[in-house]
Amino acid sequence: MISLHVQAQPSAPATGKIAFAIHGGAGVIRKQDMSPEKEQAYREKLTEAVLAGYRILQSGGSGLDAVEAAIKILEDSPLFNAGKGAVLNADGKAELDASIMDGKTLAAGAVAAVHRIKNPISLARAVMEKSPHVLLVGEGAEIFAQSQGFELVPETYFITPERQKGLERAKEREKSSQGRQPDKKGTVGAVALDKFGNLAAGTSTGGMMNKRYGRVGDSPIIGAGTYANNATCAVSTTGWGEYFIRTVAAFDVSALMAYKGLSAAEAGKLVIEKIGKLGGDGGMIILDKHGNIAMPFNSEGMYRAYINERGEPVVQIYKDSP
Amino acid sequence: MISLHVQAQPSAPATGKIAFAIHGGAGVIRKQDMSPEKEQAYREKLTEAVLAGYRILQSGGSGLDAVEAAIKILEDSPLFNAGKGAVLNADGKAELDASIMDGKTLAAGAVAAVHRIKNPISLARAVMEKSPHVLLVGEGAEIFAQSQGFELVPETYFITPERQKGLERAKEREKSSQGRQPDKKGTVGAVALDKFGNLAAGTSTGGMMNKRYGRVGDSPIIGAGTYANNATCAVSTTGWGEYFIRTVAAFDVSALMAYKGLSAAEAGKLVIEKIGKLGGDGGMIILDKHGNIAMPFNSEGMYRAYINERGEPVVQIYKDSP
Repeated sequence: MISLHVQAQPSAPATGKIAFAIHGGAGVIRKQDMSPEKEQAYREKLTEAVLAGYRILQSGGSGLDAVEAAIKILEDSPLFNAGKGAVLNADGKAELDASIMDGKTLAAGAVAAVHRIKNPISLARAVMEKSPHVLLVGEGAEIFAQSQGFELVPETYFITPERQKGLERAKEREKSSQGRQPDKKGTVGAVALDKFGNLAAGTSTGGMMNKRYGRVGDSPIIGAGTYANNATCAVSTTGWGEYFIRTVAAFDVSALMAYKGLSAAEAGKLVIEKIGKLGGDGGMIILDKHGNIAMPFNSEGMYRAYINERGEPVVQIYKDSP
Repeated sequence: MISLHVQAQPSAPATGKIAFAIHGGAGVIRKQDMSPEKEQAYREKLTEAVLAGYRILQSGGSGLDAVEAAIKILEDSPLFNAGKGAVLNADGKAELDASIMDGKTLAAGAVAAVHRIKNPISLARAVMEKSPHVLLVGEGAEIFAQSQGFELVPETYFITPERQKGLERAKEREKSSQGRQPDKKGTVGAVALDKFGNLAAGTSTGGMMNKRYGRVGDSPIIGAGTYANNATCAVSTTGWGEYFIRTVAAFDVSALMAYKGLSAAEAGKLVIEKIGKLGGDGGMIILDKHGNIAMPFNSEGMYRAYINERGEPVVQIYKDSP
């Protein structure tokens, strides 16, 4: 195997400062549609995931480890559109995409259209670390997974009653209405700054409900759904993937910071505005090399969480209120 | 179907100036390895393709039409690693990727890992124009193709004796040597400026010889292998795809022009240098909104052609000589 990731990028200032943030997807998430029990379940799972990642960073672990650990928790939860509980494609199957990037080396790994991988984020990491490639798709990615000792789960593992109902509703809407409205809720992602000054980002998704034709969104696309570079920032996006691909959203944030000197918040706001102008919606989490966090979105809500300056988890869901 | 491409970008100055350039791949292309007959065959096919695209622009056709027409000619030729004559994967099959982008609307379409599409660039265009998606992969992409009236060709259509021999040699090298050396020759691409001031770019490839695991390179990735934006430039890349993904190469050229005011030549040189520093190689063709062409590469050669100020085709292959 050829190693593609040997040269370190200009390092972030290794002040020992750590920072961590996650998202659980942007979309039509409204307080009035949410039961207190459901909201509580989301808050608890986001808290668990953000704390899990942060504790890894506190104990000197790498940003990549923190990103992978938090995303695995979200993948394993049926609440989010990734791993177990992913939305179902038109054939009634979960079809999963994920990617991860190391800001120190610009190494990256991604998988798309896999059906039997419990934790796609871990497979994306194996592609990055154990293969000379960046992106593997479909059955080939699963063959690679087996060669790396990944256990394949049955396709039924991913299916939850709620997602089955969702698919039925989507198929009915399709029959009755003028067109297919994409259901875009719930991609998950994480960004980390570890005590060595290294940034990392990762994203995992089941994509669009009722999707066809092997459609792949932005989540496994380096530069669109995920990007990390120690010189600038780590980014994970969520939303209507086609718009994030066309705007090369995650990398554009980094480019605006590197080439125009914008802050993470300014760059993120500008890229979300570009997406909005094209007619798209969604959001992103951004972590810069100093530990500053921005979480811009133009959808009704975005599940998100971070660790504040006092080391406490902060969980937010809606636009105007926590 | 939902249309994703309704809003026009800031238009290039519509001076009526047209420009067109193509590439037939970068790699270890050396004068001493080339017979006069083989070189002549490449020069003739590149001339045919660059003239075909240019004539479309001359007669008032769109940049997208010119890009598609030229790439189809290169796909149909067994000389290049795209369409017929694509390198074969480890299973002995051609596995094809392509993408196209419209600089006016930032609409984009791409397909990856298709096996039975004669002209993947035309399918990428259908994804852009006839679906709400950007990227379709594998069998799903072929099902979409059939729904759009594309005729599927047998997998044997793509296989040439030369590529079969190449695969056998690659498998032998793999057995005997310390590792797998990727064979990266021959992706094709085109960039166009039409008389309406619209830029377009497209790329098509068979990827890496002897590839496994559903490996997908940069050619179908918007921002890595292909990018077009009327505000800046149109770009198509070729080379060791993993590096072009990690550097988000095509979009980075556009970002350096938009945010730092670099010329197409300066931006292209800088991005190829970044790729070289990471250990990668390859090249790209860039066309800016004023019709300036840059063709930077750090490999031994790059098949390339453009139409000069006098309307004549110029074909180049090697680094230091034409």
